Amino acid sequence: MPVSYVVALDVGGTSMKGGLVTFAGEVTVFPGRDTGREAGPDSVVAGIRTYVAELAAAGSATFGMAPSGVGLAVPGIVSEAVALYAANLGWRDVPVSSFVPNGIPAVLGHDVRTGGLAESVFGAGRGVADFLFLPLGTGIAGAVVVGGEPYGGANGWGGEIGHTAVWPDGEKCACGQRGCLETYASAGALARRYAARIATTPEQSVTLAEPNNAQARSQGAVTAKEVVERAATDTAAAEVLNEAIDALAISLASYTLLLDPSMIVIGGGLGEAGAVILDPLAERLADRLSFRKPPPLRQAQLGVQAGMLGAAILGWRAAGESSWRPDLRATPTRSP
Amino acid sequence: MPVSYVVALDVGGTSMKGGLVTFAGEVTVFPGRDTGREAGPDSVVAGIRTYVAELAAAGSATFGMAPSGVGLAVPGIVSEAVALYAANLGWRDVPVSSFVPNGIPAVLGHDVRTGGLAESVFGAGRGVADFLFLPLGTGIAGAVVVGGEPYGGANGWGGEIGHTAVWPDGEKCACGQRGCLETYASAGALARRYAARIATTPEQSVTLAEPNNAQARSQGAVTAKEVVERAATDTAAAEVLNEAIDALAISLASYTLLLDPSMIVIGGGLGEAGAVILDPLAERLADRLSFRKPPPLRQAQLGVQAGMLGAAILGWRAAGESSWRPDLRATPTRSP
Repeated sequence: MPVSYVVALDVGGTSMKGGLVTFAGEVTVFPGRDTGREAGPDSVVAGIRTYVAELAAAGSATFGMAPSGVGLAVPGIVSEAVALYAANLGWRDVPVSSFVPNGIPAVLGHDVRTGGLAESVFGAGRGVADFLFLPLGTGIAGAVVVGGEPYGGANGWGGEIGHTAVWPDGEKCACGQRGCLETYASAGALARRYAARIATTPEQSVTLAEPNNAQARSQGAVTAKEVVERAATDTAAAEVLNEAIDALAISLASYTLLLDPSMIVIGGGLGEAGAVILDPLAERLADRLSFRKPPPLRQAQLGVQAGMLGAAILGWRAAGESSWRPDLRATPTRSP
Repeated sequence: MPVSYVVALDVGGTSMKGGLVTFAGEVTVFPGRDTGREAGPDSVVAGIRTYVAELAAAGSATFGMAPSGVGLAVPGIVSEAVALYAANLGWRDVPVSSFVPNGIPAVLGHDVRTGGLAESVFGAGRGVADFLFLPLGTGIAGAVVVGGEPYGGANGWGGEIGHTAVWPDGEKCACGQRGCLETYASAGALARRYAARIATTPEQSVTLAEPNNAQARSQGAVTAKEVVERAATDTAAAEVLNEAIDALAISLASYTLLLDPSMIVIGGGLGEAGAVILDPLAERLADRLSFRKPPPLRQAQLGVQAGMLGAAILGWRAAGESSWRPDLRATPTRSP
């Protein structure tokens, strides 16, 4: 007997992750592949179309029918029907039909907001209508969840919390503004600021008992994860992490005062560090708020699969199932 | 023939404004009266109930029927049915029925959000689903309008943009936090900061050709409106106004990046200053945004009547008319 399912795709700047998700909630994850943006915008679109077709073929073979819908999480400015603009992929006004073969119903979503939708339905935000999903990755953008749905503002440019100023006369951000949250608290910022700090630390003030310092200085490539790990014993790492947490506390205090969320869900690579970031952040967020309690901070639950699982929700919406929210069950990763 | 109407009341910390508004949009404004909070929370509730009863009696005499509904804009944390908490009036969990005689259907709304609702339906935000209504008064709070409705967050504590930090290590705010927008940019802040600045300005650096300076120093009570007026010729006033506009630009840049509004509607006493504030603010807001355009700034259109007209919208909702939005016509102010 055929089993109905959707094709779900999370398209990032460098790689994309695909899956098949049945109506009953069985999730099959496929190996990711490169987005291949260096080949140009049209090539990326063609690559996505091919990947969707291959996933649909794999689904047809497994489940005995064509997919009921396709959901795609993509970066940039996006409506359900059109990828309006994506700076890093070079897109302008690409209709959803370009990504999907054979007229299968399909819906597009903004990458971060689609991840927030998945956390809302299946993850840390289950049962909560109003929260912030804040993945701390190479950059920082958030999904402002309002009344159960991620909210992109008047034209889909919302959620750019990473470029709100925490210290308005502070460090120059790559975006051209000053003092942006992202320039202190993203994974990219932690790695960059730590590298800069140890490069300018006078030799005699380096803790010689910390062998990684010398190594880092010679290699010049310490990851954000390593900065967090070193913070317990390395002054430069502790300072950089401390400033990141301060920046997050300032920004989340403003978010809390403005939008009164039920909770704040921290995701991304840095979010996975867990208590070492969330505990001091919760404390400093409370310190920044004098006349109201802070909302609880929660670690995101879906990790790197948030975008793909959100895309599955969009795929089921394309298929007319807008209240789809089963218990998910994962099957082993496989190839199409 | 009887004419249907609602009773609309805007309850502030010191005074309340009442009106009658017919279904066709005829607005009759009544003289305001003191809220009388010094007599205690129960007395304020009783005073409101009396005022509503008098307005209803006036309406019955004029229109030949009892009011179809009552709308009340009140400060604090509020649901449609209960005034949950108001620090400045001492309220806790006051049901809407306490304010309204004879079982007339009634709905409560948050004061600033009710003003934002009125600007959305009748004022500067007409036809715009997503905007910020920001009245700059003695204090600062905003109405975050999302999808056509003011949004108060998970528990009604939202909109406190006046207490988001613009310079997080800046001046101490009365709320206990540091660097709040309100402590630089409210009408209260302009008056207070100007008075402090001229009190500490050395005699010889005062522009002696500016007679108001000496006057202000002796009286110690220059209003925000006067500070704005003096800014063209008085260095201290220009500095204080300049810092207020900087603070607003920082705060509105963050709002724009986070919530992507279609426009920002500036109201309150300072908003009525018009271009002298809005023009430099628009310029500096644009300067604070590197990768997106700023939303347009607009002056609020309803002035001090915003709260009462929003309360009328709530009154018609209480009466079951949730899509009420006539063209308004004012009749002369009268007494009940």
